[in-house]
Amino acid sequence: MEKINSLQNAHVKAWKKLQTKKGRKQQGQYLLDGWHLVNEAVKAHVAIQTLLITAKQLATEPDLTHFPAVIEISDEVAKHISATVTPQGVFALATLPAAIEDLSQLDLTRPWLLLDNVQDPGNIGTMVRTADAAGFAGVAFGTGTVDIHQPKVERAMQGSQFHLQLISTDLDKLVDQLQAQGSPVYGSELNPQAARYLDIDAPASFGLIMGNEGNGMSRELLARTDQNLYIPIKGQAESLNVAVAAGVLMFGLYR
Amino acid sequence: MEKINSLQNAHVKAWKKLQTKKGRKQQGQYLLDGWHLVNEAVKAHVAIQTLLITAKQLATEPDLTHFPAVIEISDEVAKHISATVTPQGVFALATLPAAIEDLSQLDLTRPWLLLDNVQDPGNIGTMVRTADAAGFAGVAFGTGTVDIHQPKVERAMQGSQFHLQLISTDLDKLVDQLQAQGSPVYGSELNPQAARYLDIDAPASFGLIMGNEGNGMSRELLARTDQNLYIPIKGQAESLNVAVAAGVLMFGLYR
Repeated sequence: MEKINSLQNAHVKAWKKLQTKKGRKQQGQYLLDGWHLVNEAVKAHVAIQTLLITAKQLATEPDLTHFPAVIEISDEVAKHISATVTPQGVFALATLPAAIEDLSQLDLTRPWLLLDNVQDPGNIGTMVRTADAAGFAGVAFGTGTVDIHQPKVERAMQGSQFHLQLISTDLDKLVDQLQAQGSPVYGSELNPQAARYLDIDAPASFGLIMGNEGNGMSRELLARTDQNLYIPIKGQAESLNVAVAAGVLMFGLYR
Repeated sequence: MEKINSLQNAHVKAWKKLQTKKGRKQQGQYLLDGWHLVNEAVKAHVAIQTLLITAKQLATEPDLTHFPAVIEISDEVAKHISATVTPQGVFALATLPAAIEDLSQLDLTRPWLLLDNVQDPGNIGTMVRTADAAGFAGVAFGTGTVDIHQPKVERAMQGSQFHLQLISTDLDKLVDQLQAQGSPVYGSELNPQAARYLDIDAPASFGLIMGNEGNGMSRELLARTDQNLYIPIKGQAESLNVAVAAGVLMFGLYR
């Protein structure tokens, strides 16, 4: 088995660059960090090129038959290429999927969650997990939203990234596609024209847009929605966490 | 105005200890970190003893009339006593409220959220904010749950801690109190006896228990619930984030 111990190694430098969008695009790969994600990826038949593993993890005698190549790395290398402070010591190099350009390929028979300029990887991961649990068909990462394959986003999705369709797209195009087939698109911005979410009888297919943590949805996108929804606030809280609001709306609309 | 610059100062050592439950109890105080929390506390008439503020914050000429005492601190002291990496440079020393021993003093005309051994300050803060927004009367921090006045919990509550009643208690006692007045107590553990939350017609007053992130509710408490509820999972996600599940249940039960 090949062993790599030095931070000066050219492979290590390349793996480190997978933390950036530019690096992932140039190398056509992304990094999955930790056994849970790696195992979920294997189950989902994700194309994994190489497993990187520390001696300590090798000592647990894991089943390595799923991986075309395995490289042993030092603890120092593991720490260097991970986005977490205390990595488990196992990583998969997965092939970056081709971007879906033709949105008519998407499953639009069930709802979609649209993320408009959402910034926090934890919130994004939680929303993807919740969309998975609520039976949504997919999640669209709009321009300005953190990248799907950013390591912290990948970790926060906890495997749900392999259960539904995830796309990066100009959200305008997906709104076009949904509305063209008669599926309504709902916004989530508190304004005088908004309807109480419980009063909506949503069809089997719709789009739900969640906006930026501080500033909400973009004006342009809001203007294109069929209906804007609000969650009635009874207490004195100024707002809900965006992932909690998304959960209440997803489960409330799609029962 | 008194100025304190040294980490060796006895006051600074005492403030640092407010990060621990023992330190808060011994000194009868807790720390509120950042303008947002301090201003919310002032609005809510929380008993603040002293404001600690850096020169940089003083230069913005804030209104200091609300504070019985003001001490200028160095950036170094601010960093030392804060639980965050980049503190704003303003803290309030607030009086630790007396523990509520007599639960009959609580407002039990509206719902209560009960936290059974919940560990993550972010999750706890988000649940308190959501309970506030959903119009709950209060949140009970059970034995094993992180302390109400832990600095990270205080920050994550974002001011909602001043909008509803928060108590630390043996949850058994609150279950007694609720059930004695005929209010049902709902669990949130997936098991064969669980009812779908949407099928429940909850009264104006009830208790909802959320359990530990990994292990769920304690057996003993689960046995005492009137009904155990589940959120139907349609996709392949293994579970929901505890704060999202709490949001779906709170808004679903109390409309």
